[in-house]
Amino acid sequence: MPVQAVSRVAALKNIATRLRIDSVRSTSEAGSGHPSTCASAAEIVAALFFSEMHYDPRDAKNPDNDRFVLSKGHGAPILYAAWVEAGIIKRDDILNLRKFNSDLEGHPTPRLPWVDVATGSLGQGLCAGIGIALNARRIGSEYRTYVLMGDGETAEGSVWEAAHVGAHHKLDNLIGITDVNALGQAGPTQWQHDMDAYAVKWRAFGWHAVVVDGHDVSAILGALDEARRTKGRPTMILAKTIKGKGISSIEGKNGWHGKPLKKGEEMQRALDELERQFVPEDEPAATPAPPRGTSRKDPSGSIALDPPAYKLGDSVATREAYGDALAKLGAKDVRVVALDADVKNSTFSDKFEQRVGDRFYENFIAEQVMVGSAMGLAARGAIPFPSTFAAFLTRAYDFIRMAAISNLNIKMAGSHAGVSIGEDGPSQMALEDLAMMRAQPNIAVLYPCDAVSTERLIEKMANHKGPMYMRTSRPKTPVIYGPDETFEVGGLKVLRESGNDVATVIGAGITVFEALKAYEQLKAQGTSIRVIDLYSLQPIDSQALLRCAKETKGRLITVEDHYAAGGVGDAVAAAVAPGGFTVRRLAVSEIPRSGTPEELVDHYGISARHIVKAVTA
Amino acid sequence: MPVQAVSRVAALKNIATRLRIDSVRSTSEAGSGHPSTCASAAEIVAALFFSEMHYDPRDAKNPDNDRFVLSKGHGAPILYAAWVEAGIIKRDDILNLRKFNSDLEGHPTPRLPWVDVATGSLGQGLCAGIGIALNARRIGSEYRTYVLMGDGETAEGSVWEAAHVGAHHKLDNLIGITDVNALGQAGPTQWQHDMDAYAVKWRAFGWHAVVVDGHDVSAILGALDEARRTKGRPTMILAKTIKGKGISSIEGKNGWHGKPLKKGEEMQRALDELERQFVPEDEPAATPAPPRGTSRKDPSGSIALDPPAYKLGDSVATREAYGDALAKLGAKDVRVVALDADVKNSTFSDKFEQRVGDRFYENFIAEQVMVGSAMGLAARGAIPFPSTFAAFLTRAYDFIRMAAISNLNIKMAGSHAGVSIGEDGPSQMALEDLAMMRAQPNIAVLYPCDAVSTERLIEKMANHKGPMYMRTSRPKTPVIYGPDETFEVGGLKVLRESGNDVATVIGAGITVFEALKAYEQLKAQGTSIRVIDLYSLQPIDSQALLRCAKETKGRLITVEDHYAAGGVGDAVAAAVAPGGFTVRRLAVSEIPRSGTPEELVDHYGISARHIVKAVTA
Repeated sequence: MPVQAVSRVAALKNIATRLRIDSVRSTSEAGSGHPSTCASAAEIVAALFFSEMHYDPRDAKNPDNDRFVLSKGHGAPILYAAWVEAGIIKRDDILNLRKFNSDLEGHPTPRLPWVDVATGSLGQGLCAGIGIALNARRIGSEYRTYVLMGDGETAEGSVWEAAHVGAHHKLDNLIGITDVNALGQAGPTQWQHDMDAYAVKWRAFGWHAVVVDGHDVSAILGALDEARRTKGRPTMILAKTIKGKGISSIEGKNGWHGKPLKKGEEMQRALDELERQFVPEDEPAATPAPPRGTSRKDPSGSIALDPPAYKLGDSVATREAYGDALAKLGAKDVRVVALDADVKNSTFSDKFEQRVGDRFYENFIAEQVMVGSAMGLAARGAIPFPSTFAAFLTRAYDFIRMAAISNLNIKMAGSHAGVSIGEDGPSQMALEDLAMMRAQPNIAVLYPCDAVSTERLIEKMANHKGPMYMRTSRPKTPVIYGPDETFEVGGLKVLRESGNDVATVIGAGITVFEALKAYEQLKAQGTSIRVIDLYSLQPIDSQALLRCAKETKGRLITVEDHYAAGGVGDAVAAAVAPGGFTVRRLAVSEIPRSGTPEELVDHYGISARHIVKAVTA
Repeated sequence: MPVQAVSRVAALKNIATRLRIDSVRSTSEAGSGHPSTCASAAEIVAALFFSEMHYDPRDAKNPDNDRFVLSKGHGAPILYAAWVEAGIIKRDDILNLRKFNSDLEGHPTPRLPWVDVATGSLGQGLCAGIGIALNARRIGSEYRTYVLMGDGETAEGSVWEAAHVGAHHKLDNLIGITDVNALGQAGPTQWQHDMDAYAVKWRAFGWHAVVVDGHDVSAILGALDEARRTKGRPTMILAKTIKGKGISSIEGKNGWHGKPLKKGEEMQRALDELERQFVPEDEPAATPAPPRGTSRKDPSGSIALDPPAYKLGDSVATREAYGDALAKLGAKDVRVVALDADVKNSTFSDKFEQRVGDRFYENFIAEQVMVGSAMGLAARGAIPFPSTFAAFLTRAYDFIRMAAISNLNIKMAGSHAGVSIGEDGPSQMALEDLAMMRAQPNIAVLYPCDAVSTERLIEKMANHKGPMYMRTSRPKTPVIYGPDETFEVGGLKVLRESGNDVATVIGAGITVFEALKAYEQLKAQGTSIRVIDLYSLQPIDSQALLRCAKETKGRLITVEDHYAAGGVGDAVAAAVAPGGFTVRRLAVSEIPRSGTPEELVDHYGISARHIVKAVTA
């Protein structure tokens, strides 16, 4: 243990006491919150923020600051209390905890500049930590990433995905600390105070694990030092603690999860007790050590790709065009990274790997850590593209939800959309991904139909700030756009248009081609329809849709390789409702089965034949 | 090892060879599928189906049949081949693999009577296995549950949730077998052939783990025997295998995932090679041992509850009414079980635990295994109610998707919906759960506003077949229905109605009360509105909504504590579109923050004030 740490133990103990006091004060004032979970973590947080971590409290944006992720997000008050100690916020600010006009929310969000990812859905912090630690490698920084977890949340499978991937990447710049206070919300945690039960698991997953008394500042400093000296693998510090520590009325007691001490006498008794815990200081705590300042500066500004190399009429699956575009993008800019979950040869993200392997991160079959890691990377300036089968992004929906709350710059892509994948059957078909993504109000949702629009939209994704999703398809489709065609997030293309169109048919992805087929069949019968490629579902070009509705007798027909609720039909319907227009929806309306793509597209009512029927009905 | 097993080794070897032959034949005929992953599992499947398992091949519905879950669902052809051997299906049937008119789909689904849960989304089978094994306990059956997994899928966190929960419940009637063929889809699996890497993890999670040569029939039989003799914990058999085993052209080779042998010469060479692997049999394989026949018979028929005990005007949160109703239900019928993920004191499922603790299953903070286990329980005749915060059901969306594909009888409930939870902030607010559930075409979605409707709808849920979801709220709301009021899945209630209503306002959950407040305010101004409690979103009462639209000048206003896409507004819009009516939607349209419930409901535009404004606009 370094000498400086030892001499500061008394000061750190007193900081821990002040952190407890402030956590009690803020939650009592708010009338809700989690003082007991703060109290168990006080010595850990004091040791991290005021001895271990290197950061500049006056510069939240410094890329070399050590990172802290409060995975047990309900411990927010102690994080805010640590910021008070560090001089980042004023002590009185914490009395606004959980108030509408304060950014000091019930659980931390990146509205606060020191927070990388919103937490509060347990089991996510370590996944984000993987991405943050990978980013240090990407930019050549020596910053270290510390993730404080609760013991209860280690029941989440996502934690063990992170455990495996962290070991796989040999992330010795990543340190987890589990605050084992043995009490969850509803009762004792799964392994309670059996410290060995935790240690054997982390060791089995390839981590260096250290068990310490989480209320012994010297022991914590020693473990952090041991972590710093551990090379080639991440370290998990397992800190045995007592929930509510320091406040005898709630210490180690069940039933005090998420319950503040009542303002007035109950609070005051706790504060008085805590005040008595101050010890004489031989030496004041040092100010935090400055960041190490070794990173390469990321480029800024937008990324421009050369025009797509496809020719009109080429036959290319949009998933393959995705891989090609991603590889081009990666070669252009070091911020671009790609993440896979063992399907890179189906999503074609392997094209990226072949070109820029050092920024390609394999997660094996583990979608939660793939998205969580992308969240961490995005928080630190990377432009991450995690991709898998669109169906399997449902596995990461809670992470996607939290990425939206965090408004992170992640660029998700899902392949193998819809019944048009054919024989593999419903388990591999994404039929709810558009609904899932569109439900999040700030996720942009793109769904190109050909290779050129895919490539151009990937370029837009890289340059657009905020969470985005692109849906790609399995079958090959003809290239219908020239290399100079432009596409906008929030745009659409009118592919067929005349002065006497009897209806507007709106497709996206593979159904654009069904609509074009229907156009030809109807034309042969003397009927003219308008055909739209709705490549951007969110935002959506309401103006253009309203114009088409007006010009085509108010008849709008949507056709989509997706379930009926939440997809193209609902997006268009919401967009045109203010004009008084309604939509006739062709969509998959039941659980599908195996078959050929053609059979399924027809059987589930989204083929050219059904469009013709809907137009002529 | 029992003598009978030894004497049958040669016969089992030959069965394994026939399983390989049939897997090659069916996939080559289909032109797609996974012969290589079947080949690695052939000895395991032969040993399970023709020596270890007790079942009646002529009676798929026998409750005491041993259960087999093919978690590596892409190995479907070998499962179908095993059924051929067992006489369950005809050998020629497998040549219809993956065809539209055959139930032998690319991945197994419960369209086939021997399949409990659809697989094909990796990492789910063991979670379902937990539920199936728990069900054996529930009905007092000695049936045993066998789950065959791939090594690649053990990267999924859900597998480790199952590992923990299986050990927690001491499920010694549950046996996992991991087919460690070391090759995933896109390359080597995470731990490849490092058998110790697997074993230490399973042991760390409290399982008995046995490593065997997965192509040595005697060794497999020995391991299964060891599992049978292991008490107080589940067993994981780790079988070292070779992908494509027995077919030298693909054996152990990367690039042969999901690729059939080409019909014709390539296939024939493989079949010839396999034919040469037959060995002389000293004794034919025995027919499967019969089921042990020890179970208690479940009651059949519907469950009727006594009328709710609430009085008009009582103030009760729907989440609390959920807990009370669930407890009443559990006391009435042994099929009813409840599952929690460490929030039982918030969802109030602890009321069930207090009353029928032996049918209450705690999963700690692990939503995937909670839902997966519910899937397994449902498949075996239980009526499972898994519940957590609605926001955290997003964690299990892939399981919910697969439960829908399986059309399982699971009854999910999510509490703490929307911004009306207040201070905890967005991470705890479900604002996409309705979109997520409605996207699945066969999930019924209920959203009661008071305690009486909650209790009555819980009763309906128990008696309705198929997957369902109920959304409950955190704040207390007044009881507005009398104890004799009836509610239907697919119904709604018109709460205020007159001959001169200028608009219909449609709320659900807490917004019903905002609509009622708006009604009073408008009435005071001399304006009359119709108010609907849309407690069933899917199915939805289109007829009643269309009637109201016609009777209230075509003006429909929805108001919901949910994001704009995929919730109440879209549900109503889709229902009334055929009548040419559109909907004005009041919904949460941005990422919310912490605050008091009242502040948030008003700020995000879903309070009475906003309804009044929309009506008078």
